[in-house]
Amino acid sequence: MEMKSTSKAHGGEQQVWSHASTETATPMTFAVFVPEYAPGETLPVLWYLSGLTCTHANVMDKGEYRAACAEHRVIFIAPDTSPRGPATDGSAVADDPAWDFGQGAGFYVDAIEAPWAANFRMRSYIERELPELVAAHFPVDMTRQGIAGHSMGGHGAFTIALRDPARFRSVSAFAPIVSPLNCPWGEKALGGYLGPDRSSWREYDACALLDDGARLPNLLVDQGMADSFLVEQLKTHLLAEACQRAGMDATIRLQAGYDHSYSFISSFMAEHVAWHAERLHRPLGR
Amino acid sequence: MEMKSTSKAHGGEQQVWSHASTETATPMTFAVFVPEYAPGETLPVLWYLSGLTCTHANVMDKGEYRAACAEHRVIFIAPDTSPRGPATDGSAVADDPAWDFGQGAGFYVDAIEAPWAANFRMRSYIERELPELVAAHFPVDMTRQGIAGHSMGGHGAFTIALRDPARFRSVSAFAPIVSPLNCPWGEKALGGYLGPDRSSWREYDACALLDDGARLPNLLVDQGMADSFLVEQLKTHLLAEACQRAGMDATIRLQAGYDHSYSFISSFMAEHVAWHAERLHRPLGR
Repeated sequence: MEMKSTSKAHGGEQQVWSHASTETATPMTFAVFVPEYAPGETLPVLWYLSGLTCTHANVMDKGEYRAACAEHRVIFIAPDTSPRGPATDGSAVADDPAWDFGQGAGFYVDAIEAPWAANFRMRSYIERELPELVAAHFPVDMTRQGIAGHSMGGHGAFTIALRDPARFRSVSAFAPIVSPLNCPWGEKALGGYLGPDRSSWREYDACALLDDGARLPNLLVDQGMADSFLVEQLKTHLLAEACQRAGMDATIRLQAGYDHSYSFISSFMAEHVAWHAERLHRPLGR
Repeated sequence: MEMKSTSKAHGGEQQVWSHASTETATPMTFAVFVPEYAPGETLPVLWYLSGLTCTHANVMDKGEYRAACAEHRVIFIAPDTSPRGPATDGSAVADDPAWDFGQGAGFYVDAIEAPWAANFRMRSYIERELPELVAAHFPVDMTRQGIAGHSMGGHGAFTIALRDPARFRSVSAFAPIVSPLNCPWGEKALGGYLGPDRSSWREYDACALLDDGARLPNLLVDQGMADSFLVEQLKTHLLAEACQRAGMDATIRLQAGYDHSYSFISSFMAEHVAWHAERLHRPLGR
């Protein structure tokens, strides 16, 4: 673990760390905001998974989460969206010239197809390796985890939480991809990383996981109505329908006039952080 | 005037505009956030001048002003920090390889030395041309203007306001350069743009302007104590001393642990916006 930068912000510290990942066999970088805390104190943690093309830096620069995280006393962690080359052993990491596949577009899966399988293990990285690292190095209460994400990262947050709902006390997303099985981004990514057997994609599809019996502890979604990806890629209505079929409550808000950018995300970030914090700070067992 | 982008944010619109400037004889770009407003309504305007190397985009991306501007109903305008080439007639615009001189470092002066005089007229651009454009195109109440800035932009805000205090109802800065006459950045820039006659620099030096009798309507400064430029370049104490000599009240806060970055700026932005708004919304004449 190497600290790449640290700056005081809103009374806490906004830091960037890098480490050699065993899952991806590459260096991995993540951003972490730690509010001011007392010696010995631990704080809840909110994971934030970013969208296509993003690194750890986009939400750190534009997400406007620090004031709310400082107020509500929540640690905020933003990982990268894929491995990036060169690998730890100096070898090249596979990439694709498209912006919606390969580096910057890991889709939070463990790839099984060549050449991606060697490094594209973002599922295991986010599910196991990074939480262990975070638990060892930061003042986190790992019994109080929430997860959020944007677009591809909303897909990541939902599917990671649906496969292990006991880990998370709160789940939310901004403009999520809700069903990779049913959109061009998802079909390209899951087909490329996992191969043509679409039954193997279901554990990476929030709507399919719901249909297959998984449930979330709760769910908050904000979706901009002026989002140019809504109709073809995001298809929020599929999630609403899957929640109805599942009999699972969800707050899904279509917000007039908002697009897919960080102008939208930052407009609702404070509400999401407050929503997570309310659930993360509740006495355990409630 | 050409709108380069618009995104809904915090109920208003974050936009980027470009226009052919007559002062700089180049295209100029600025960012503007307009909160939601009623037909026929006008709102106060807060000018924000950025620091060395910045464009209009840095504070737009990282400044975290939109929530506060929406809450307090203030229009926020962020110009670029210099002309950038090519000029409107296709000719080249002078530049310098250093990051603290030339493009990105206009220092809010009207240059008189060659080759800068042709395009580097940021003083007249900010003082006259851009306000006229803004008054004609946005729902601004030009009797209610405030000005703020960061670093070189703090210097710009102070000197523009000191030369025309009746224009502004509120003035603030983050980590300002308070006396270009007395720091390497200032000596390099003013010497380069204005020539060796240091008496001609005084109208571009906040402390000299105060000593020469100018006064501000009020003043708020935040300065990080972990700012690596504090001792050699910023020298906040010179401003405190000049205010004392002038018998002018000023709130100058040294903030423990904060550096020179947007982590610092964004930590105190909401307070600055609220401070300006309180003065900008007061009944006129108070």
